Amino acid sequence: MRILVTNDDGTNSEGLWALAEALTSAGEVYVVAPDRDRSGISAAMTLLDVVRAHPVNSPVDGVEAHAVEGTPADCVILAHEGLYDEPFDIMFSGINQGANMGADVLLSGTVGAAVHGYLRGVPSVAVSSYYDPEGSIRYESACIGAAAIARELLASPIEAPLLLNVNMPDVGPEDVEGVEVTVPGSRAFLESVQHEVVGRREHYWIKHNRSNSQPKVESGTDVWAVRNNRVSISSISPLLTDGIPGERLERLAEVVRHAMETSGSLA
Amino acid sequence: MRILVTNDDGTNSEGLWALAEALTSAGEVYVVAPDRDRSGISAAMTLLDVVRAHPVNSPVDGVEAHAVEGTPADCVILAHEGLYDEPFDIMFSGINQGANMGADVLLSGTVGAAVHGYLRGVPSVAVSSYYDPEGSIRYESACIGAAAIARELLASPIEAPLLLNVNMPDVGPEDVEGVEVTVPGSRAFLESVQHEVVGRREHYWIKHNRSNSQPKVESGTDVWAVRNNRVSISSISPLLTDGIPGERLERLAEVVRHAMETSGSLA
Amino acid sequence: MRILVTNDDGTNSEGLWALAEALTSAGEVYVVAPDRDRSGISAAMTLLDVVRAHPVNSPVDGVEAHAVEGTPADCVILAHEGLYDEPFDIMFSGINQGANMGADVLLSGTVGAAVHGYLRGVPSVAVSSYYDPEGSIRYESACIGAAAIARELLASPIEAPLLLNVNMPDVGPEDVEGVEVTVPGSRAFLESVQHEVVGRREHYWIKHNRSNSQPKVESGTDVWAVRNNRVSISSISPLLTDGIPGERLERLAEVVRHAMETSGSLA
Amino acid sequence: MRILVTNDDGTNSEGLWALAEALTSAGEVYVVAPDRDRSGISAAMTLLDVVRAHPVNSPVDGVEAHAVEGTPADCVILAHEGLYDEPFDIMFSGINQGANMGADVLLSGTVGAAVHGYLRGVPSVAVSSYYDPEGSIRYESACIGAAAIARELLASPIEAPLLLNVNMPDVGPEDVEGVEVTVPGSRAFLESVQHEVVGRREHYWIKHNRSNSQPKVESGTDVWAVRNNRVSISSISPLLTDGIPGERLERLAEVVRHAMETSGSLA
Repeated sequence: MRILVTNDDGTNSEGLWALAEALTSAGEVYVVAPDRDRSGISAAMTLLDVVRAHPVNSPVDGVEAHAVEGTPADCVILAHEGLYDEPFDIMFSGINQGANMGADVLLSGTVGAAVHGYLRGVPSVAVSSYYDPEGSIRYESACIGAAAIARELLASPIEAPLLLNVNMPDVGPEDVEGVEVTVPGSRAFLESVQHEVVGRREHYWIKHNRSNSQPKVESGTDVWAVRNNRVSISSISPLLTDGIPGERLERLAEVVRHAMETSGSLA
Repeated sequence: MRILVTNDDGTNSEGLWALAEALTSAGEVYVVAPDRDRSGISAAMTLLDVVRAHPVNSPVDGVEAHAVEGTPADCVILAHEGLYDEPFDIMFSGINQGANMGADVLLSGTVGAAVHGYLRGVPSVAVSSYYDPEGSIRYESACIGAAAIARELLASPIEAPLLLNVNMPDVGPEDVEGVEVTVPGSRAFLESVQHEVVGRREHYWIKHNRSNSQPKVESGTDVWAVRNNRVSISSISPLLTDGIPGERLERLAEVVRHAMETSGSLA
Repeated sequence: MRILVTNDDGTNSEGLWALAEALTSAGEVYVVAPDRDRSGISAAMTLLDVVRAHPVNSPVDGVEAHAVEGTPADCVILAHEGLYDEPFDIMFSGINQGANMGADVLLSGTVGAAVHGYLRGVPSVAVSSYYDPEGSIRYESACIGAAAIARELLASPIEAPLLLNVNMPDVGPEDVEGVEVTVPGSRAFLESVQHEVVGRREHYWIKHNRSNSQPKVESGTDVWAVRNNRVSISSISPLLTDGIPGERLERLAEVVRHAMETSGSLA
Repeated sequence: MRILVTNDDGTNSEGLWALAEALTSAGEVYVVAPDRDRSGISAAMTLLDVVRAHPVNSPVDGVEAHAVEGTPADCVILAHEGLYDEPFDIMFSGINQGANMGADVLLSGTVGAAVHGYLRGVPSVAVSSYYDPEGSIRYESACIGAAAIARELLASPIEAPLLLNVNMPDVGPEDVEGVEVTVPGSRAFLESVQHEVVGRREHYWIKHNRSNSQPKVESGTDVWAVRNNRVSISSISPLLTDGIPGERLERLAEVVRHAMETSGSLA
């Protein structure tokens, strides 16, 4: 089984390699990821310039890796059309530093990459991990959950085109309180803009940090789940005519739940 | 009424100014658009670099304009947070050279800009015009349709958050055969990748041009409508809990139909 | 006579058009300039990506203009190889906001553009105007001086390959105290670096503003001239075997001096 | 002794690490290099955007390395101002794939980086290796020569600000026929421009490959030396008032000659 792994934080992100390593238990892993941090890049493709790619050393044994001077979407496209001849059985995008919930799925490069796999008929899973900005990010739960999903989907493929958005709470696997099948909540953040004048020039910084004052944190949403230490799994198929049978999603939640419970605290 | 106009083809695109001019009949138009062609940029925001903006001469009287060294999304964000203090009543993104239908709405910078207006609670309308690549693009139908939609929405605002995707067929208003409320069809194009070696270097070109061999052109879809010389109006609200009452959408279709019929062949 | 005008501050810079207008008195002016501010870009060419150019409206009558999504050097190269078939008789780069003196000539995009004209055998003149950062930049002296140099060089071409670096003091033509043939002084500024941490990311800002504590302001240098309200003309031919006869340079200084004296205070 | 190593081909270039390794015999080596290929970038600095840097794994033991999302000049500036507190005793830029001779020194990113070290008073050496495009590049001679120069300059520093441009012929050390102190020859290449139309868009490719039909290959020049299997060492101090005593340059040539003769054919 051929597993493609990408992300939007780039090849210098620890989460990318943690995910790649975790997935080696499920199949043959190939990393094709951006050479730089491309957060906020959505599903953007580079259509107006050339795109360059080169092999990079992988810190994970047995994993072949390329860095792409481009977007996460470019990575998925090149993985399917330029770098490899054989198709992928599944793709994962992550582990993003920070959750991608609610309307953020439209803006996230992590999800944007998964959109491109989905559009090519490859089961695609975006994996993000919420963390307290004052603390540091944990990858362990995400790794365990992703590996469990990979094994399940490769053993029992879902017929319909699949785009899953998985968000981990900021706890280790032993403290995960459950795994929920969710729908995206409302948007938690808007952008704020900082205007700076430097000499005779001026510029703006766009920051994705203005908290929505009335977040609707309804139960059943990804936001609710993550805030309550649950793993959130959403099917975010953007084409409304695609339905994923509810029981298939519940099965996925079950295997992840089981994996957390049986994981101990080993990465 | 304050109307924001942006696009993804940039300030050098004729379609941007044609749309701006057409909308002056509905309110006060402000253009904030990318300084370069940003096709394929989806809803990407520039979060990791500064963004610069400067006033530009507008070829349309009475329209204030800025060019942004950034993405269409950056334009919408800066219009709301940096460049102006007052909110916009409605925003339009377009007129895109080429249709944006089916799954392309996920990749299109034209739609990506409208997503950001929608997320800010501004009624947002993406306007694209299909055209035969062998021929040249017409803006007249798109201008008439957009102006009609603007007048209707400003006179009778729809309560729910609104994100409309409008696609024009490749005909003048007098040849428009109808106006349909549609849903996005399946994807018509995937990307192909061209590998080139130049000296000791190599690169890839990603081209959004590989036609899907089994396009499902079902009636009721945007693709069907445009191929049959109908104007297509889709509500593409990405947050599933948002519903737009069907009769409101039908009302919009009606005003556009009427505008086409009464337009003669004047721009 | 065909005159190419470019700059490194981009098509939105007033100084570019002031220069273009002033040079219409000497010949047929063609503007090919970067679409964005490219300060600090030196003689860099875009070799690893495509370069796009498009016509732009010129605020100066009779001047054809293109904007290039690239560097000042790209502009000079495209002007000679892609956009026009006929060669240019002379080229000007400017009017830069801020002087380019001493070792800054190695870093300046204004001078970098002129280097490329020089390398193609076109007499090339970089024009910069010093100004007090607390005040605003004057273009008048630079316009008068550039036009005088253009008329002189077109009437009496200098045989050897020519690369002139002209710097204006921060005064109007009536207060110019002289015109000197100079050599580049030592470097007046080094860079300082500001380190910023934003959330989980960090970055650096390079600023070209750290004043050299022991500037050698020797008479005969460009720095000395400009500080003493003189126009500075340096031949900065980088290939040591190229000599420009001293009397030719003195002749240029004379025509500029005369132009300042007879200018009144009209632009 | 602290030795800074950078280049313009980026951290993925074999020549960078070959040079770093060779220099470990002369002192403590620190690599700060661009994360991408920046050929043709001249002495350009990033002044209008932030610059990011991150540690990277070094394939050479004992060498600390950073990749910079920026230009070679940015690397030199950050190495001196942001990344390290202690100054460097010497810096090397290379090993460039392809020679940088004649007027190319004005355009080369390899030389551009060295210019910035020179401007900061650090003895700076650009190292390039000519090679037959049909064949593959050799780094051995460049490594031996650079290490010999490093040891000599660190043992017997030259008082004046130093900027050396070293070019290797396309032979192994045993076939080097001599080492010459040279001056830059005339320019061997101009750019050509290829215009391409893709759909409704067009663009240009600038290629640095149009051979000058009348190259003046005078003896005593870098071009002559390299074509005749000699190592070329030029002092290319851009500030004319800086003189490097001829006998110091001849001494450098001698140590390199000796190193080639005694090298055998080991890297």
